[in-house]
Amino acid sequence: MKICIAQLNYHIGNFEGNLNKMLEAVAKAKTDGADIVCFGELATCGYPARDFLDFDDFIAKANASLERLTQEAKDIAIVVGSPTINPVPEGKDLYNSVYFLYDQKVQFVQHKALLPTYDIFDEYRYFEPSTEFGVHEFKGKKIALTVCEDIWNIGNENPLYKICPLDEMQKDGFDFIINVSASPFSYASAKTRQDIVKANVYRYGKPMFYINQAGAQTEIIFDGGSLVVSPNGKIHQELPYFEESIQFFDLDDVNQGTQENVQDNDKIKLIHDGIILGIKDYFGKLGFTKAILGLSGGIDSAVTAVLAARALGPENVKVVLMPSQFSSDHSVNDAKALAENLGCPYDIIAIKDIYDAFLEKLSPIFGDLPFNVTEENIQARVRGTLLMAQSNKFGNILLNTSNKSEMAVGYGTLYGDLAGGLSVIADVYKTDVYRLAEYMNKDGEVIPINTITKPPSAELRPNQKDSDSLPDYEILDTILYEYIEKVQGPQEIIALGYDPKLVARILRLVNINEFKRYQTAPVIRVSPKAFGVGRRMPIVGKYLS
Amino acid sequence: MKICIAQLNYHIGNFEGNLNKMLEAVAKAKTDGADIVCFGELATCGYPARDFLDFDDFIAKANASLERLTQEAKDIAIVVGSPTINPVPEGKDLYNSVYFLYDQKVQFVQHKALLPTYDIFDEYRYFEPSTEFGVHEFKGKKIALTVCEDIWNIGNENPLYKICPLDEMQKDGFDFIINVSASPFSYASAKTRQDIVKANVYRYGKPMFYINQAGAQTEIIFDGGSLVVSPNGKIHQELPYFEESIQFFDLDDVNQGTQENVQDNDKIKLIHDGIILGIKDYFGKLGFTKAILGLSGGIDSAVTAVLAARALGPENVKVVLMPSQFSSDHSVNDAKALAENLGCPYDIIAIKDIYDAFLEKLSPIFGDLPFNVTEENIQARVRGTLLMAQSNKFGNILLNTSNKSEMAVGYGTLYGDLAGGLSVIADVYKTDVYRLAEYMNKDGEVIPINTITKPPSAELRPNQKDSDSLPDYEILDTILYEYIEKVQGPQEIIALGYDPKLVARILRLVNINEFKRYQTAPVIRVSPKAFGVGRRMPIVGKYLS
Repeated sequence: MKICIAQLNYHIGNFEGNLNKMLEAVAKAKTDGADIVCFGELATCGYPARDFLDFDDFIAKANASLERLTQEAKDIAIVVGSPTINPVPEGKDLYNSVYFLYDQKVQFVQHKALLPTYDIFDEYRYFEPSTEFGVHEFKGKKIALTVCEDIWNIGNENPLYKICPLDEMQKDGFDFIINVSASPFSYASAKTRQDIVKANVYRYGKPMFYINQAGAQTEIIFDGGSLVVSPNGKIHQELPYFEESIQFFDLDDVNQGTQENVQDNDKIKLIHDGIILGIKDYFGKLGFTKAILGLSGGIDSAVTAVLAARALGPENVKVVLMPSQFSSDHSVNDAKALAENLGCPYDIIAIKDIYDAFLEKLSPIFGDLPFNVTEENIQARVRGTLLMAQSNKFGNILLNTSNKSEMAVGYGTLYGDLAGGLSVIADVYKTDVYRLAEYMNKDGEVIPINTITKPPSAELRPNQKDSDSLPDYEILDTILYEYIEKVQGPQEIIALGYDPKLVARILRLVNINEFKRYQTAPVIRVSPKAFGVGRRMPIVGKYLS
Repeated sequence: MKICIAQLNYHIGNFEGNLNKMLEAVAKAKTDGADIVCFGELATCGYPARDFLDFDDFIAKANASLERLTQEAKDIAIVVGSPTINPVPEGKDLYNSVYFLYDQKVQFVQHKALLPTYDIFDEYRYFEPSTEFGVHEFKGKKIALTVCEDIWNIGNENPLYKICPLDEMQKDGFDFIINVSASPFSYASAKTRQDIVKANVYRYGKPMFYINQAGAQTEIIFDGGSLVVSPNGKIHQELPYFEESIQFFDLDDVNQGTQENVQDNDKIKLIHDGIILGIKDYFGKLGFTKAILGLSGGIDSAVTAVLAARALGPENVKVVLMPSQFSSDHSVNDAKALAENLGCPYDIIAIKDIYDAFLEKLSPIFGDLPFNVTEENIQARVRGTLLMAQSNKFGNILLNTSNKSEMAVGYGTLYGDLAGGLSVIADVYKTDVYRLAEYMNKDGEVIPINTITKPPSAELRPNQKDSDSLPDYEILDTILYEYIEKVQGPQEIIALGYDPKLVARILRLVNINEFKRYQTAPVIRVSPKAFGVGRRMPIVGKYLS
């Protein structure tokens, strides 16, 4: 039996685009003599479609795509994810289903039972969990059809669910497992995914075909890396990360388990490649081609510019240098050198005159109150306004250059340097931003060395340094990681050996700055816990604040 | 039996504050000879605590409050909502529970079974649903203890759940029902709440004590309106809206059903009073006292200013008039008149010089490209920056003045007039903003009549009118209401008699402006479907766009 995995890049709500992509893959799979072609979870409508799922019209369009695919399931079976209307009034209105289409008919449907409702996931908002399980026989083979999370309740110390769908299906016996997924990327996901698929294969002694999507939907990247795992636990094939791929597998070959193929999953390389896909798809799916960003000469905007240039082409990335009286000469030079290294068009706009115009108008109100964060913020907002003006005039989307460390503690100006349509590196801690810069320079200097080696500074007042008000980034990032990614409280973090006052101060900064993060751009997610939709905090909460 | 309802204003994560409030109420209830005192859902930790619930430390603090209350449950029973750690590893880690404390012991716990996971609710993200139900006998009476949603699965055509907790409890029989709630406000909620409580009373023939919270948590208002309903369906008492209240009821009196007490629930009055509480609690719970906003002379900023002045006191609301060369004289005069009517301090800052400084710096880049939305946005951003500078210098929180109609279609400038810490009227359609203005003027002119009667304009280019680019607000708002609140698709809306092209254009504007709403301030929720946490849409979605 020949099985085709179509690891595709879907687009939420783009029914025609998704359908055409799948029809092309079906045609290719037919030509190559496949018996089955497999697509992803909710492939007809895209994932996560969020509250579009509440519209009857949206579901009707998904059903129309499914019907069209059913017509195409002639001489080939199609396995595809699509929503199903729950026929009983009780419970949620939809199921999240995998369909087995053959002979121009729906031969079998299995609804998803385990509905992830944590982090970025909201599936119980829309879907009723399945309580019925079966397997489908096709050409003499019994197939267990599963949707994403349904294979993940295995070997967990603290499981989220009370059932394990494949245990139920095993009662009927099966020869192999197909899983259609929309499993989001983090730098840790490739390894976790391999482990979970292997754990299932070991438990049931049967091969698995695991089909992920490859594409970004706003802030969430689906990284591909679909898997074919032999009954002995060897990874027969891991499909590429971050790109579409259509591959064919002979079930007998897979059953033999004689090959092992996995890819490099170095954290920094994955972050680099993942963000590039995130930028590319944000622009591509919204129909934009050009970006703009401010280059300060510092490392954050430098790394962002490199990622943007690699995603969109340097000619499509306009960079703007906006020095003030507090900017050092090397900042402008470093920024120019980077723009030239990359081949990005650039402009220089000195902000002093505009900044002074603001101060003059405000002076009757401010009187002789001393310079403080107010004046720093004005500089940042003048820059934000200059960038947005060019964005508006020329249609370049503004990229935000904030990193995760500063987003966490609120070191950034709302409507100033926190402006932008997409936050490129706001899920990357400062210490990893340095690693990204080194990775980018591995085949020759792209980012000027001075940008990497000089002490970080916002340059919003004379001789300012980040270290004036923050601990070393190694310490800051570790505390933040424990609090944000590992959900550890103050006692647990102090127990690791950190100063209680410092821990209290950092956690307080994170919590009191929730109001800023509420208003910032979507953050491309590369970690297991990113700011944005996956981390939901009250603004008026009075906890550790 | 004497039952005390303590309708209190809790604060998320403010364990000490919440506990002290409850201890005071317990003392008062003891003094007044109550047998039972009842608090709200998750009263120890506040609701909705969101991802704070993931922290062991947070739950430990809630448990400590519960223990303290247990010690106080001497000569009085305490009914209170608090999270419970799920003792089995399978399933979510917490239950959302109601506790019955007496004789310094936990006498009974009932976990919530129906976990709202729609609109603003994310309960299945945190809680395991209960599958066990019981009643608790106290002083010869059997009590059915329920948490919020557990009484709501009754009489629905399309129910979200498969069980009805009180049906289960009825097997053991009960004499009355207590429900502890955190039921959010909309202008329709008082009526709905009365209907649902009555429906339960009719179904079981027993009286109900329904305890809601009264207070706002960022964008979500809990409006109080706690209910005591007699077995014959008469509303024995409805506690006040939008304020704390502690009241006592004799069970025998309630059982007689001889009185009916409900309050005025006029939509505009409710919106008016609800928003005032929303502002008051946003400031109070964050520890701020002063607001700032821009007054344009138009109706949106006028209505926002009145609400702010009524919430915080006029002396705490700084208003700023920022005319440009496109502003009409009457705008400045109308704004001044309003500030003087209210008694708010005001300043006037002409923005032309700053605007010109921007244009001058951008002219080498813009060349002779014509004036367009870019220059309009610059004006809005100059104003936003001037307001934020004063906010930063003096600690006044900037209030956003956008209405729901313009938020929906994207008529607003990110980082300009969309700036602010809290969106005051962004859940109020323009047509209702006019009604609010009239309501505010009912006892004499507060908002200048000219502000109400003149055609709305953003005044960002010569002779601009909203009607240049938008249909009449009556039509626009109806289409938006059908799409947003009623979740109707284009076919259903067209079927109501609207021009298909207009409907397509409006829905497209709503969808392509999701990126703006993603970055705007929390919106005080007054309708059944507000922008923000209760409406989750993909940015890169290609649906009706």
